[in-house]
Amino acid sequence: MPRTIKLTLAYDGTDFAGWQFQPGQRTLQDTLEQTLEKITGQFSRVFASGRTDAGVHALAQVVSFETESALSAEILQRALNAELPHDMAAAMVEEAPSGFNARRDAKRKRYRYQICDGRVRDVFRRRCAWQVFNRLDVPAMQRATEVLVGKHDFASFETAGSERETTERTVFELMVTRMKEPDHLIEIEIEADGFLYNMVRNVVGTLVEVGQGRQRESWVAEVLAAHDRRRAGPTAPPQGLCLVRVQY
Amino acid sequence: MPRTIKLTLAYDGTDFAGWQFQPGQRTLQDTLEQTLEKITGQFSRVFASGRTDAGVHALAQVVSFETESALSAEILQRALNAELPHDMAAAMVEEAPSGFNARRDAKRKRYRYQICDGRVRDVFRRRCAWQVFNRLDVPAMQRATEVLVGKHDFASFETAGSERETTERTVFELMVTRMKEPDHLIEIEIEADGFLYNMVRNVVGTLVEVGQGRQRESWVAEVLAAHDRRRAGPTAPPQGLCLVRVQY
Repeated sequence: MPRTIKLTLAYDGTDFAGWQFQPGQRTLQDTLEQTLEKITGQFSRVFASGRTDAGVHALAQVVSFETESALSAEILQRALNAELPHDMAAAMVEEAPSGFNARRDAKRKRYRYQICDGRVRDVFRRRCAWQVFNRLDVPAMQRATEVLVGKHDFASFETAGSERETTERTVFELMVTRMKEPDHLIEIEIEADGFLYNMVRNVVGTLVEVGQGRQRESWVAEVLAAHDRRRAGPTAPPQGLCLVRVQY
Repeated sequence: MPRTIKLTLAYDGTDFAGWQFQPGQRTLQDTLEQTLEKITGQFSRVFASGRTDAGVHALAQVVSFETESALSAEILQRALNAELPHDMAAAMVEEAPSGFNARRDAKRKRYRYQICDGRVRDVFRRRCAWQVFNRLDVPAMQRATEVLVGKHDFASFETAGSERETTERTVFELMVTRMKEPDHLIEIEIEADGFLYNMVRNVVGTLVEVGQGRQRESWVAEVLAAHDRRRAGPTAPPQGLCLVRVQY
């Protein structure tokens, strides 16, 4: 009987062509499957809670796989951290109930999006933040988020090309916070029962329009009600995005 | 009459072979001199407060140079930020008194050294921190620093090969702090009137011996009194080090 493993993975997405296997590209799925095969001597297909795009990071991506290996969870974690490249790390390895699937069983996900809005670029955060050059009005952005919390049709914030049954999602929390140190760092955290393709990046691009004073706060409600991607702001770049938690 | 310019420079040192010009290598000095020549149409020799090694970073390195250019400080800054590569930024550009030299005139420098001591490596800080895998005793490290503050002969903490008249330096402040978020990040800040070659990295390597419980706190006083590099701990790796302030 194969065992089911739940693996929590951190990665710096900068040098990956995203999660999903693509021939000839360095992807997270392929790197993990190859490393697991090296450790256990057998191939395991891995399932992530969601497929992060090229350049997107994870503090705690959750991945499930089945294995015939008898290695304990602790040994498996140690072997993974020895064999994985330096931009990936196994934060946790646990036994999971048979049949557990990290993608299908995910109940909530939380993303963090980082923006730097100093007049001079932050050279240390260029791999993990979106650099804008005019200071954003964070209180206005926070007020503009209010209409997005709750159960809504988020079609206006979906980039085309995704498979999904419905464009309704429930956003449980959406916070925009300016850090104290450094003062030019803004974090947007959003938690929902699921996300449409590029939904976080499209929400962020829309909120930044408000933060830059190019749109009124009330415009976000109009965008949401339109169910039309062309009405929203631009898609924020991938490197600011990080998957921080998945709940089951 | 040439003007003297004081430039405050931030850089991510990861992809540089250090400050100082070396033929065929990507160095900070060479990149800055080439960029200035492109902007002003003339060559200016640049002088940094100190020559950071390969992999060492700066939040606020101070650089001086002379130029015949009539560009205002503001325009110069904008041109530098447009032309410099993404891992360098001109944080400030100011007119300086004629004859100002960033190296010779520096009165105090402050460095920060970052250590991650989580059981699992921090993939996001691997370019700017030293990863150790056992949790350090930060209060013991802080107590061990006490004997280093003040005016002392720091010969035990100097890597050979440097030119200097004396190995005496005055350390004004030396603090070891564990961050709250994330809890596995430790910052060591040290301010002095000057530093011997590799002095910060040798002090950090010595303090980590104490933090790991391999040496007693009182051992640091013995190391200092020995005036012998072989008595101190190992040299901490370069990527944890960042020049954060220079005072004139």
